Amino acid sequence: MKQLILTCVIFCCGIFGVLKAENLTSPDGNLSLDFRLLEDGTPVYSLQYKGRSVIKYSEMGFLIRPDYAFDKGFRKMFVRYAETDTVWHPVLGQYRDIRDHHKEMFVMLEQPSTGWKLNIRFRLFNDGLGFRYEFPVQESLRNFSLKEEMTEFRLTGDHKAFWLPGDYDTQEYPTTTSRLSEVVSLVDSVRLEPLAAKSFTPNLAVQTPLMMKSDDGLYINIHEAALVDYPAMQLNLDDKNFCLSSHLVPDKNGIKGFIQTGSVTPWRTVIVSDDARDILASNLILNLNEPCKLEDTSWIHPVKYVGVWWEYFTGQGSTWAYTKNQDIVIGKTDYTKEIPNGTHAANTAHVKEYIDFAAKHGFDAVLVEGWNEGWEANFAYVKEHIYSFTKPYPDFDVEELHRYAAEKGVKIIMHHETTSSVADYERQMEDAFRFMADNGYDAVKTGYVGPIIPRSEYHDGQWMVNHYLRVAKMAAKYKAMVNSHEAVRPTGLCRTYPNWIAQESARGTEFESFEGNRPDHTTILPFTRLMGGPMDYTPGIFEGDLSVYGPNKAQLSTTLVKQLALYVTMYSPLQMAADLYTNYEKYPDAFRFIKDVAVDWDNTYILEAEPGDYITIARKTKGKDEWFVGGITDENSREAEIDLSFLPEGKSYEAVIYADGKKADWRTNPKDYVISTRKVTSKTVLKQRLAPSGGVAVSIRPLSR
Amino acid sequence: MKQLILTCVIFCCGIFGVLKAENLTSPDGNLSLDFRLLEDGTPVYSLQYKGRSVIKYSEMGFLIRPDYAFDKGFRKMFVRYAETDTVWHPVLGQYRDIRDHHKEMFVMLEQPSTGWKLNIRFRLFNDGLGFRYEFPVQESLRNFSLKEEMTEFRLTGDHKAFWLPGDYDTQEYPTTTSRLSEVVSLVDSVRLEPLAAKSFTPNLAVQTPLMMKSDDGLYINIHEAALVDYPAMQLNLDDKNFCLSSHLVPDKNGIKGFIQTGSVTPWRTVIVSDDARDILASNLILNLNEPCKLEDTSWIHPVKYVGVWWEYFTGQGSTWAYTKNQDIVIGKTDYTKEIPNGTHAANTAHVKEYIDFAAKHGFDAVLVEGWNEGWEANFAYVKEHIYSFTKPYPDFDVEELHRYAAEKGVKIIMHHETTSSVADYERQMEDAFRFMADNGYDAVKTGYVGPIIPRSEYHDGQWMVNHYLRVAKMAAKYKAMVNSHEAVRPTGLCRTYPNWIAQESARGTEFESFEGNRPDHTTILPFTRLMGGPMDYTPGIFEGDLSVYGPNKAQLSTTLVKQLALYVTMYSPLQMAADLYTNYEKYPDAFRFIKDVAVDWDNTYILEAEPGDYITIARKTKGKDEWFVGGITDENSREAEIDLSFLPEGKSYEAVIYADGKKADWRTNPKDYVISTRKVTSKTVLKQRLAPSGGVAVSIRPLSR
Repeated sequence: MKQLILTCVIFCCGIFGVLKAENLTSPDGNLSLDFRLLEDGTPVYSLQYKGRSVIKYSEMGFLIRPDYAFDKGFRKMFVRYAETDTVWHPVLGQYRDIRDHHKEMFVMLEQPSTGWKLNIRFRLFNDGLGFRYEFPVQESLRNFSLKEEMTEFRLTGDHKAFWLPGDYDTQEYPTTTSRLSEVVSLVDSVRLEPLAAKSFTPNLAVQTPLMMKSDDGLYINIHEAALVDYPAMQLNLDDKNFCLSSHLVPDKNGIKGFIQTGSVTPWRTVIVSDDARDILASNLILNLNEPCKLEDTSWIHPVKYVGVWWEYFTGQGSTWAYTKNQDIVIGKTDYTKEIPNGTHAANTAHVKEYIDFAAKHGFDAVLVEGWNEGWEANFAYVKEHIYSFTKPYPDFDVEELHRYAAEKGVKIIMHHETTSSVADYERQMEDAFRFMADNGYDAVKTGYVGPIIPRSEYHDGQWMVNHYLRVAKMAAKYKAMVNSHEAVRPTGLCRTYPNWIAQESARGTEFESFEGNRPDHTTILPFTRLMGGPMDYTPGIFEGDLSVYGPNKAQLSTTLVKQLALYVTMYSPLQMAADLYTNYEKYPDAFRFIKDVAVDWDNTYILEAEPGDYITIARKTKGKDEWFVGGITDENSREAEIDLSFLPEGKSYEAVIYADGKKADWRTNPKDYVISTRKVTSKTVLKQRLAPSGGVAVSIRPLSR
Repeated sequence: MKQLILTCVIFCCGIFGVLKAENLTSPDGNLSLDFRLLEDGTPVYSLQYKGRSVIKYSEMGFLIRPDYAFDKGFRKMFVRYAETDTVWHPVLGQYRDIRDHHKEMFVMLEQPSTGWKLNIRFRLFNDGLGFRYEFPVQESLRNFSLKEEMTEFRLTGDHKAFWLPGDYDTQEYPTTTSRLSEVVSLVDSVRLEPLAAKSFTPNLAVQTPLMMKSDDGLYINIHEAALVDYPAMQLNLDDKNFCLSSHLVPDKNGIKGFIQTGSVTPWRTVIVSDDARDILASNLILNLNEPCKLEDTSWIHPVKYVGVWWEYFTGQGSTWAYTKNQDIVIGKTDYTKEIPNGTHAANTAHVKEYIDFAAKHGFDAVLVEGWNEGWEANFAYVKEHIYSFTKPYPDFDVEELHRYAAEKGVKIIMHHETTSSVADYERQMEDAFRFMADNGYDAVKTGYVGPIIPRSEYHDGQWMVNHYLRVAKMAAKYKAMVNSHEAVRPTGLCRTYPNWIAQESARGTEFESFEGNRPDHTTILPFTRLMGGPMDYTPGIFEGDLSVYGPNKAQLSTTLVKQLALYVTMYSPLQMAADLYTNYEKYPDAFRFIKDVAVDWDNTYILEAEPGDYITIARKTKGKDEWFVGGITDENSREAEIDLSFLPEGKSYEAVIYADGKKADWRTNPKDYVISTRKVTSKTVLKQRLAPSGGVAVSIRPLSR
């Protein structure tokens, strides 16, 4: 990716031992940051938006084990200002051009009592603040461990928040909407949610991205950018003073991080606006990540895929496992001598059906889960060598499927479910990626179900954070894209490693077959989980009544049309059409939208947005005069207003509108939909009723087509 | 290796619900084992030697997490008897032929309350008992974790014991000799010993191999054999009842093992005799290990080596590190741009000097420590990616040294110090062994200094036990021998994986440069550490006064001749001549013994032995009419009686006798030695005075030579 540096002015001013505040404003002047040292040498910062306080004076720094206060006793040493204005181009994205325009304040501190040095770099964009700590190389501080990062975010009041309970192992809780003061009374019941790995924070804490709304109408989003070699940050909640503070994910010995000087922390991000749409339009987190580190990105491409997947959740009896023998031992058990269970879905013939369907309807790829040895006895945590990542089951013919898929112009997506036996996965990892390269795979879905082995680690601690990135780098070596599930939530690293194409890292569609998702779920996720990067939400469920398959009584939380709209509202360059293909064959007119919709974009227009209520987004297909619109609502029906002024002026287009039917309702009549076509221009404003938990999806193409 | 099955008779008898004792005797009838179930269904065993009690009725079984008693409530189901008498041939060893003659009792138990099944296999040899638990595949018990193994060893009295304090991370303590009742008053001071990684057992416990002597003159050795996929066993000490009980090394979460049924535990071994020499002569532990699993062993060979090693300990200033920059980052730092520190020992020119010396004096190999990137900042535990195992320092020319060594007929021994960053080593391991194969290395010394990463693990827990074996297997794949330092103490696995040629796993010669070894140290180790397998003790220090090099005031704990004798008394097919070669050049006549002595044997004769006091051993060189004798004593001088009746009758031989000089004393005059030559026959009995902490070394060859 080329970077065009438009402006880069550096101001320097050395200020020694002065306690007065340093100030930085955003390029547009709306945001203002103050930084100063308190009398005891504690660094503090505050943030204002259009003259209103967003973050009150909040402390910064660290506790270094064993109990060295590295958050006070500083004297200011040096402050340097700079401004940068550049445009860069993501390999895949919501925008072809992303502008990075920020002002920077770089503060170099020293703690005279220890001689230790700490730098803080602030960057103020028009849409928010990012700051990080930097540990310069220094003689008296070299390798140390963290007891805690002491960063505070002192809020101005009892904001409405969209929160997940603090947990070191999962982001798969449903999001709860409440005031901050109400979290304490709600958190225990939220934690009852059955999840494969849960490790509660010992105190009251919530996770990031944390979306909030103040009583005076400010939208505030706190997260982090560029999480590399550091634990994920959760936020302690002091619900008396509405003070959030950093709570790094520890290892099981209680150590929160191992630092070598010459390194930096992730960026702490505060995105602010009085218009919720600006939150979704923000590229602040991507801008704080480093430019692409891959020299060749020609092999990275958007992926729309189907897969041997949903049938495992419907209750129809498909199994990942090949046999019923749970006493298998990887490397010893000869599967060709095992009795097949008759329900193994990832068999050659069945996968060919998926390949045929994908080829017929223009999908790029077929995900196949359950192809490899080990699923019979994938007991989490008590067993370490669970899977082989290079040995297929006897009924999965790797070579034949490679040949067949290639002939049809379709890729097979590899699946590496680790069941969180991560050290064992790392042992096999290079062989696994070599196996992929040898057999025509260019993408892998990874999975981390259950608690982590090594047993000192949590999903979101520093060790695992390093692991996920290690996988992305190893994949890049073998020109493979990674779609990680149950990994730490993203922080914009897809800019730097664009082959890390998508993640799950939140409650996805699979939960529609368990305890369910709420109608407001996907109106929140873009404000929370998706702030850090694309989500493989796996939408596209047409048959939402799972009782048609068997004993599972689960009901989808949306109308069918809302499922279509999610392809636009839930950004990902990797999108699944998750339902059984037989269901798509029943609704070919609605399926048309899934076939048509793009997954990589020139531009994105956030038309309407209110977290927890509704989202309407339009996007222009990358390199094409073609637009797609998706609108969704929560449990309340509403009228979406789709202002098409983003279209080029003076030209007419054909819009195909996929709308909830008049009687549509997610509870009673989810599959009632109406498809209509009309001519539109940049002056058109479509008004479209959305059913309870309904949606609208629109494709817009030149009339000539 | 060929196995000749001489006898194998199987008796079967099914006995249901009967509480009477089952009995097994050793082939020679000296040992007798009873097994029965107590009224509450607790399995117990006892052991007698020549009618004297060795182990009183002692309980067996497990506690399975969370708190399932799997040590009572059994009813006896089935008992099967067998006898085996075979001879096998180790690839390298103290004996060309090893006889495995034992009687076996196999007990199948079931716990009616749970339906769980547990088998116990007892093997009684003439020199002791082995038993192990076996977990058969069963429907209701598949994967489980261990809270504890409940095996007891109820002793008959307050035996004299040679003990190390219970510790999960190290066997490098000096051995303490005391009665069992005195351990409690001594253990705290022993634990003060400064070691790189220490993790005390929370309760009073000692390590195995535990050597004991009863007041009525029985020598009892407790250890284990075939430690695979299971934690090492330490022994809780109940010093009121003189009851030892299994204390498995846990992980840091307190879980002691993860078991999948269809597996077996290591063997618990009790070697017994009224003659201490029988303990040293025992092959029981090897016999309980599985036969060699490597198809091709032609590449495994004995190794006598020198190395770039002792100079790091002498205080003369040699460094493993290449630069003084401790802020290096592996993979980022360009060492060619770093300033050399001028003291880096593993440089091409200096290594060539060692190669020249090795070639001149007939050594097989040269160990080179400090050849690879990372030593400047090898901070244990706080840093994970410490070393590269494939990138040499700029002044270590891998290709040129490969060429030079090959030309001289010498091998270079690879060094993989992991500083216990084990997950990171595993990531690099296959590349590291491929690098070795590509560059002519056929042996590696591994190291595990400091606490383990993953941080859930201890050196001797199940996870690390699996790691060490994984290294041996990976090495075998690349036809490399392994000499592991700071790994879990051996349990005879060198039979099964003969490329795992030696280990340190105890307090070796390096401690002579730190806090020192005691004069009795090497009279104990063969009864403790060496019971499980060869030790790379690295003897051969001629210049024992380290103050000649610099500020280090350490003094060697032996005479020079005792250093020679160790090549015979401390069995290892891999032996180092550890001193600086310049010191050998000063004493060419004494050095002659190190050059001559064999390291692989046809036969071994334990001539004299009393743990903690003295050992005299003779050995016949493999495939040659040539014998070597080594005798050592503790701080007391003594007269060794070397009965040469092992020599073939009727032939005369020339013996070269390396003896302490008249004024020799380890404290005052360690380098006083006398070399004499005399004719000997099988009727000769040499009487030789050994100085305080002195020794005697003899080489015996046909007169014609």
